[in-house]
Amino acid sequence: MNAKPILGLTMGDPAGIGPEICLRALHDPAVLAGCVPVLFGDAAILRRVRQTPAFASNQHFSKNYPVVTPDELNGLSEINEPLMVDCHGVDAAEVEPGKISAACGRAGYRYIEQAIGAALAGKIHGVVTAPIHKESLNLSGVKHPGHTEIFTALTGAKRSCMMLYSDKITVSMVTTHIGYHEVPGKLSVERVFNVIELTAETMRWILQREPRLGVCGLNPHAGEHGLFGHHEEEKFVEPAVQQARARGLQVDGPLVPDAAFTLNVRKKYDAIVTLYHDQGHIPFKMLAFDTGVNVTLGLPIIRTSVDHGTAFDIAWQGKADPQSLYSAVRVAANLARNKFFGNVAEPGEQLSGGTR
Amino acid sequence: MNAKPILGLTMGDPAGIGPEICLRALHDPAVLAGCVPVLFGDAAILRRVRQTPAFASNQHFSKNYPVVTPDELNGLSEINEPLMVDCHGVDAAEVEPGKISAACGRAGYRYIEQAIGAALAGKIHGVVTAPIHKESLNLSGVKHPGHTEIFTALTGAKRSCMMLYSDKITVSMVTTHIGYHEVPGKLSVERVFNVIELTAETMRWILQREPRLGVCGLNPHAGEHGLFGHHEEEKFVEPAVQQARARGLQVDGPLVPDAAFTLNVRKKYDAIVTLYHDQGHIPFKMLAFDTGVNVTLGLPIIRTSVDHGTAFDIAWQGKADPQSLYSAVRVAANLARNKFFGNVAEPGEQLSGGTR
Repeated sequence: MNAKPILGLTMGDPAGIGPEICLRALHDPAVLAGCVPVLFGDAAILRRVRQTPAFASNQHFSKNYPVVTPDELNGLSEINEPLMVDCHGVDAAEVEPGKISAACGRAGYRYIEQAIGAALAGKIHGVVTAPIHKESLNLSGVKHPGHTEIFTALTGAKRSCMMLYSDKITVSMVTTHIGYHEVPGKLSVERVFNVIELTAETMRWILQREPRLGVCGLNPHAGEHGLFGHHEEEKFVEPAVQQARARGLQVDGPLVPDAAFTLNVRKKYDAIVTLYHDQGHIPFKMLAFDTGVNVTLGLPIIRTSVDHGTAFDIAWQGKADPQSLYSAVRVAANLARNKFFGNVAEPGEQLSGGTR
Repeated sequence: MNAKPILGLTMGDPAGIGPEICLRALHDPAVLAGCVPVLFGDAAILRRVRQTPAFASNQHFSKNYPVVTPDELNGLSEINEPLMVDCHGVDAAEVEPGKISAACGRAGYRYIEQAIGAALAGKIHGVVTAPIHKESLNLSGVKHPGHTEIFTALTGAKRSCMMLYSDKITVSMVTTHIGYHEVPGKLSVERVFNVIELTAETMRWILQREPRLGVCGLNPHAGEHGLFGHHEEEKFVEPAVQQARARGLQVDGPLVPDAAFTLNVRKKYDAIVTLYHDQGHIPFKMLAFDTGVNVTLGLPIIRTSVDHGTAFDIAWQGKADPQSLYSAVRVAANLARNKFFGNVAEPGEQLSGGTR
């Protein structure tokens, strides 16, 4: 297959591990074989990271890619080689690795904004994001709590949700970055149904067959027929499951949450729909800590992300593991091939789906 | 070691798998080597189960133990052999396996009541419980949602909590059988501190050294410094952790919930204190589905339990796996030896503690 998807990589918070894992990605043979990476970030930050002890003495990281402005990117008729899009998000000299700052929060947001613009304009086939820091983002005045919300707002998506994908377990979430106490008030039949449908859509795309889905309940023992909770299972989950089945989807629920992730239950499903952040994240991180990919569903553009944070404690030290970023690139490339080139993944690249 | 602890076994809901796993326990060489079992249940139920196809033809299950009434038990000066305490909880002829009923709920409660009385009277060293059915219990008019609450009420314990113990992971819980939405309102510094202290106490007993504990936050990312939630981490978890440290306990927290159960984090702790049912049960059941033991902390008596339900779908079919009951007996016997005989477990019986 000659055509390679062109994938935007956003550098993430400059003070985190984003710059160094992006630097590694730009020099990784497997990444370069699977896509043409276009890095949205600050060229001066990348230079500073390259001068740190971990990278300075290593010839492997010396390749320089063309640097363009966002305007120049817009003027390009086609992209055939890796590029750096210099977004001038922050004064590189002022960035302190591992430190929360409004300036870095703003820069991380700017990279995302530019990458989304390029994807909506059809310059790139999808966006893969390195981690941003939620407190820095918040300090910078951006009111969205995370990537998923930014992508939803900036692409004008009517409905979206977060899915965590791996070859061991896949979970999607009805609610994500909100307080524990806010969850029940955010549940509705429509929201649960939307997440079921979006999950089915993407998993169908990945697996090339109809996926089998499970949906968790909210309360201990899924409420035990109303004994615990406010009948959230009967009010929101059951009707959404019925509605999805009426549309031909293969879906079970409400599942008892603490049983849903045991091997015997999870092996029945390609993906499990969860109702809140930790209901999905706790089991996912236990099984797929290093290899997880965050996929935003329901957007007009493809978007995947690493499944870890900015790791401020080890930022700019060359210690950060780029495997989650590589996985995110691989999943985005596969989705892009299916979406834009109509190609089924090659056998060696076939994404293994679901929960086996 | 000659002295064997005398352990009460409660038969659980007669319509569930409790009777058959208790029948197996009464005939299991390892169980009989580790304790003197005293079964609290209905002799007529045990007879009916023994006549089912799975047991009737098997000579292994033919041993008859002396049957006594609760009053006769009280009159015994010592117990040297396995006994059946016939509680006459239900008309055995009317019990339908796998069916929810007030009569069976009431019977299950009566076995527990009698066993607790015997333990408080010093007739037995501890109680191991087979599963009851929460809906049957509720139908019978008992207002306690589960074993932990019944034991707390009937023993007059001032503070108590549930701990799930296994050789792979151990978790204790600040709240258990309440609706999802009720959890934040039940948190307080005192409750979190109590669970930390009770967990430390029992783990110290099991491990024969000072245990290392972690305490989870409530919100996604442990609230990310107040970004999500109502500062429950700062209000309840941090002060409780400080208070526990001031008393010399080795405890960290608030931990980010979705990171706490990854191998790298959980291996640092002998037990993890969680704030709600599924925060602890989801990771525990993933890692220790068949081998988990439920231990009630803070009671004046020893109490352990199986970590599974009544499994109505396979009740009285001889298919139920008794391993969790055997584990519960083993843990109760070990705790009883430490408490009553002052004996450290023999090397072969040493409970492997915590999270390795």
